Amino acid sequence: MFPERTQLVLDLVGVFFFAVTGALLAARKGFDIVASTLLAGLTGLGGGVVRDVIINVRPAVFEHPVYLVPVVLGVAVVYLYYPHVPRFRRTLLLVDAAGLGLFCVTGTVKALAADVPAVSAVLLGVTSAVGGGLLRDVVAREVPSLFRYDDIYALPAVVGATVTALLWRLDALSVWTGVGASVLTFALRALAVRYGWRAPLAYRRQPPDG
Amino acid sequence: MFPERTQLVLDLVGVFFFAVTGALLAARKGFDIVASTLLAGLTGLGGGVVRDVIINVRPAVFEHPVYLVPVVLGVAVVYLYYPHVPRFRRTLLLVDAAGLGLFCVTGTVKALAADVPAVSAVLLGVTSAVGGGLLRDVVAREVPSLFRYDDIYALPAVVGATVTALLWRLDALSVWTGVGASVLTFALRALAVRYGWRAPLAYRRQPPDG
Amino acid sequence: MFPERTQLVLDLVGVFFFAVTGALLAARKGFDIVASTLLAGLTGLGGGVVRDVIINVRPAVFEHPVYLVPVVLGVAVVYLYYPHVPRFRRTLLLVDAAGLGLFCVTGTVKALAADVPAVSAVLLGVTSAVGGGLLRDVVAREVPSLFRYDDIYALPAVVGATVTALLWRLDALSVWTGVGASVLTFALRALAVRYGWRAPLAYRRQPPDG
Repeated sequence: MFPERTQLVLDLVGVFFFAVTGALLAARKGFDIVASTLLAGLTGLGGGVVRDVIINVRPAVFEHPVYLVPVVLGVAVVYLYYPHVPRFRRTLLLVDAAGLGLFCVTGTVKALAADVPAVSAVLLGVTSAVGGGLLRDVVAREVPSLFRYDDIYALPAVVGATVTALLWRLDALSVWTGVGASVLTFALRALAVRYGWRAPLAYRRQPPDG
Repeated sequence: MFPERTQLVLDLVGVFFFAVTGALLAARKGFDIVASTLLAGLTGLGGGVVRDVIINVRPAVFEHPVYLVPVVLGVAVVYLYYPHVPRFRRTLLLVDAAGLGLFCVTGTVKALAADVPAVSAVLLGVTSAVGGGLLRDVVAREVPSLFRYDDIYALPAVVGATVTALLWRLDALSVWTGVGASVLTFALRALAVRYGWRAPLAYRRQPPDG
Repeated sequence: MFPERTQLVLDLVGVFFFAVTGALLAARKGFDIVASTLLAGLTGLGGGVVRDVIINVRPAVFEHPVYLVPVVLGVAVVYLYYPHVPRFRRTLLLVDAAGLGLFCVTGTVKALAADVPAVSAVLLGVTSAVGGGLLRDVVAREVPSLFRYDDIYALPAVVGATVTALLWRLDALSVWTGVGASVLTFALRALAVRYGWRAPLAYRRQPPDG
């Protein structure tokens, strides 16, 4: 649906962004560099592996070892510059938001290319986008950022994946509109962080005698 | 093995029951409604997805988006009626037991239909039944209810899956005997809760000089 | 690549070693014997299942229920002898190291046999070796031993898997050289425990004005 090279580039950039967030968490937790690599790989590649296993495609990283390059780069960046990074918490959230924006679009596209119905493709796009971070947090014993009440995280990915599937239905999905959906997702997530946008709680508050 | 429509109905009802338990946990933890939906989906669909990925079948939810309906319904029920639900802790345990009973039978049937040996089909039936709840608890950072020592949880599912595989071996598996195995599982789990049935510990207590 | 029977024996021995570590954790946490069986199975079989799902092979345990035998044996050993085992913490670490050594070699061999590129086969070998223990720790809410800073754990498996892939590239992979790679991995891990070998941290310490 995208030219192969475009898909690859977008993928690798997304892997790099998420790998950085995994390596940063490893650094914060005092893990060693091997654990940092594992956590960066799980974050950068985990969501895509889950998606590919579900649609029964051999996960890209196990066909094309080039996917390991952005993981190693992410670990190296954190290894070299860690003490400077935490000063830029907002930068980090933006890096993560960039990964989210890229993966919800490329994940949906890959699912559509595997002949999954559009609604399920949206679900798989969101899985690609939030899966790696969820695995990262679960394995490192953090409260999944997905579930924190501070600001919406999954919803921008749902929007991005839905827009991608709609563009595809309307035969309007191209590299440019795809990148547009990524930027939209990124922007929604960035605004959610900036203004503390929240979703309603899981239950409607009611008076006890309601 | 079951008529397709019967299998679908049993599945959807099981998904609904487990989705409710996921949404309830989200409500208790103060997650928002998006997280509630994710957790309900993981609980209701996770065990089946793991089973299908193992037997190399595309998971039902990614072929038939109708599987998302009971998830949304479960989230909605909790959203609307949450404050009333915790008063009925026993009701909740029974809802979960109903999901357990349905999934250990339908999961075993699906595995047998994929030509898995009977012993492995039992294992996959149990995986379907307890997998979603395990994922729910791991992701939400709870002690897996599977491991709590209060009352047996997995064992009724093992019994239900074994009975299902035996019925199949004896060519006696029908909708009615299948539902019977479900009800048996449900009853065993309900009695375990009611009377605090426990399994032996993981080790035999011995005197220190034993 | 290995004769089938050899592969099976090495596999079953590895499953037994890891199953023992899972059952021991269950005993320490006061879980019941059902949870012990589940945790032993997850530890012994989880890494291989993840590998097989990724390379799109039906996991061995779901074809050959004989894989459940070492799990049951591991649970039985811990059930019968638990109070004696903790005195031998070093013995336990060695048992785990033996599993690590076996699985990083057999996992790499299975991935190579599925036509995965060599670099990815190394990754899958490491996944087989450390995956079960990671699942065990995550599900039982322990800090993954993989991430503890005490002594290197994954690195010996990386070495063993890399040596296996190199032997295969040089057409020198046989049962004997394979067992040699296993022993090397085991020895590296055992020495790491004995002498507290550590990897560098995830970040280079820098002066604040660095």
